[in-house]
Amino acid sequence: MTADSPLSAPRGSAREIEEGSVFAPKFDENGLIACVVTDARTAAPLMVAHMNAPALARTLETGEAWFYSRSRAKLWKKGETSGRVMRLVEMRVDCDQDVLWLKVEQAAEGACHTGRRSCFYRVVTGAGPGAPPTLEWRDDERVFDPAAVYDR
Amino acid sequence: MTADSPLSAPRGSAREIEEGSVFAPKFDENGLIACVVTDARTAAPLMVAHMNAPALARTLETGEAWFYSRSRAKLWKKGETSGRVMRLVEMRVDCDQDVLWLKVEQAAEGACHTGRRSCFYRVVTGAGPGAPPTLEWRDDERVFDPAAVYDR
Repeated sequence: MTADSPLSAPRGSAREIEEGSVFAPKFDENGLIACVVTDARTAAPLMVAHMNAPALARTLETGEAWFYSRSRAKLWKKGETSGRVMRLVEMRVDCDQDVLWLKVEQAAEGACHTGRRSCFYRVVTGAGPGAPPTLEWRDDERVFDPAAVYDR
Repeated sequence: MTADSPLSAPRGSAREIEEGSVFAPKFDENGLIACVVTDARTAAPLMVAHMNAPALARTLETGEAWFYSRSRAKLWKKGETSGRVMRLVEMRVDCDQDVLWLKVEQAAEGACHTGRRSCFYRVVTGAGPGAPPTLEWRDDERVFDPAAVYDR
């Protein structure tokens, strides 16, 4: 975060962070903040991604969600390849300002790179004494074909 | 994660992780996995916390949410002080298995240590060219008095 960034507010005391009206997001040691993304219409969690300061600034400027891809080590506009851009309806911050919550609308459903509406398409279930939990599929219909969208 | 843990499944290929039924959660370099917690009744995000492998195992065993407190460096049963225990209704995992989503019910509302229903009681708003965003209060009614609950 650069010194002249409008997001570079000093963090202040715990009370100021929790009970104040100054936006002072806490980026971790890698310069990232976690973002929970939910569907503004259905309220379903769609994905969790990370922003660095430039991604956050660009999201606030443009009203469309930008993130930082840790695997590709680059700024990344969600939907730049798939066309499934996320329009920001509301952004919230949590008590200690180290997590963001974005409510978004998508022009076309399919927030997950696997082609599903949400990244959370499996339920962890069936753990018992000594028995490993397994995954049950839920809401796992594909709304697009990732092979047709991504070159990978 | 210990070698004899039922959660110690090998991670496998990207395809196995994304399209398989084996639960193979990815803990980060600090041994933690991020958890989005939502209200099973209202669907509202309540908080984001982290689990280590023992917290995850205990959550699956007991059906109540346990986390790992980074600030206190200890295993932590949510509600152990406030009484606002979280009963697990459903746990999901995301595509690459590095985030968990917990739908929970609470005996009494108030997931945030500030006394609010949710940690997300402020909206980030008003960013303009050169102008810093500010925070607007939303859903910020206190449902308990933290001073009466926590010794801090």
